[in-house]
Amino acid sequence: MPKIDKDAAPLRTGSIYPPPWDAQMAGRTSLRLGDAGGLTQFGVNLVRLAPGAVSSLRHWHLKEDEFVWVTEGVLHLVEDEGATEMHPGDCAAFPANTPNGHRFENRSDAPAAFLVIGSRMPGEEATYSDVDLRVRITEAGPVFTRRDGSALPSTEE
Amino acid sequence: MPKIDKDAAPLRTGSIYPPPWDAQMAGRTSLRLGDAGGLTQFGVNLVRLAPGAVSSLRHWHLKEDEFVWVTEGVLHLVEDEGATEMHPGDCAAFPANTPNGHRFENRSDAPAAFLVIGSRMPGEEATYSDVDLRVRITEAGPVFTRRDGSALPSTEE
Repeated sequence: MPKIDKDAAPLRTGSIYPPPWDAQMAGRTSLRLGDAGGLTQFGVNLVRLAPGAVSSLRHWHLKEDEFVWVTEGVLHLVEDEGATEMHPGDCAAFPANTPNGHRFENRSDAPAAFLVIGSRMPGEEATYSDVDLRVRITEAGPVFTRRDGSALPSTEE
Repeated sequence: MPKIDKDAAPLRTGSIYPPPWDAQMAGRTSLRLGDAGGLTQFGVNLVRLAPGAVSSLRHWHLKEDEFVWVTEGVLHLVEDEGATEMHPGDCAAFPANTPNGHRFENRSDAPAAFLVIGSRMPGEEATYSDVDLRVRITEAGPVFTRRDGSALPSTEE
């Protein structure tokens, strides 16, 4: 049965970011619809943002195309030029290797959600626009560094 | 501006199918959102079906993953096992090389629509479940044959 049982799909909460940025991801969940349906060639997630929550740090992808379709509530798409209000049925595309970081913010007092599709490319890197941070996606998971590739300060001290 | 202007996106009508199957595609349009947004790695289309219209001949993809999210109206997803009613916010996944053909039918008396995402793989082939038909996607466009690869009867006579 190809219809996806949303109640059974994996729900991700929390953040992959290192501190202190992980704390900014409160109020965000991601329902892994593509994984639930057995897809491997691209990811499909339903991201829900509580009032005040944000989708990510503002970022752009080196190798992966990304597409977003708003499904619920009111969101602000933030990029270099500023913020654009978006409503259900609005959509946006982010071609790979376009160095204009984006994220979605829920500035309203009600929940909001969007569907996000991203291709899966070996050697993917994402660069963060507002902080000195970059991530490489490896088989072992995400590896965060400064933009110049140097190590982040230890958080163990 | 990554937000897509739907009024400016390319709208496809008609059918790529050879006769007599092309006539079955009346009442179907496809808004090419991914193309409009400059995406190349996967396709994103908003398919609208008038009452009585169908999305395609029932088919399955050899190499390409596919995902569908219903955005409007009531649709029936038809596959080998029968029909499943789907509503806005319902979704379905069709992993590559799963030989169970699918299509969406608008059996209601109001318009219906869905977002469909498909990867783009070289050498893609699709096989049609209910008729003796197969298509190879080539650089020159789609090439339709019988399932055994033989030519279709000429329609010139």
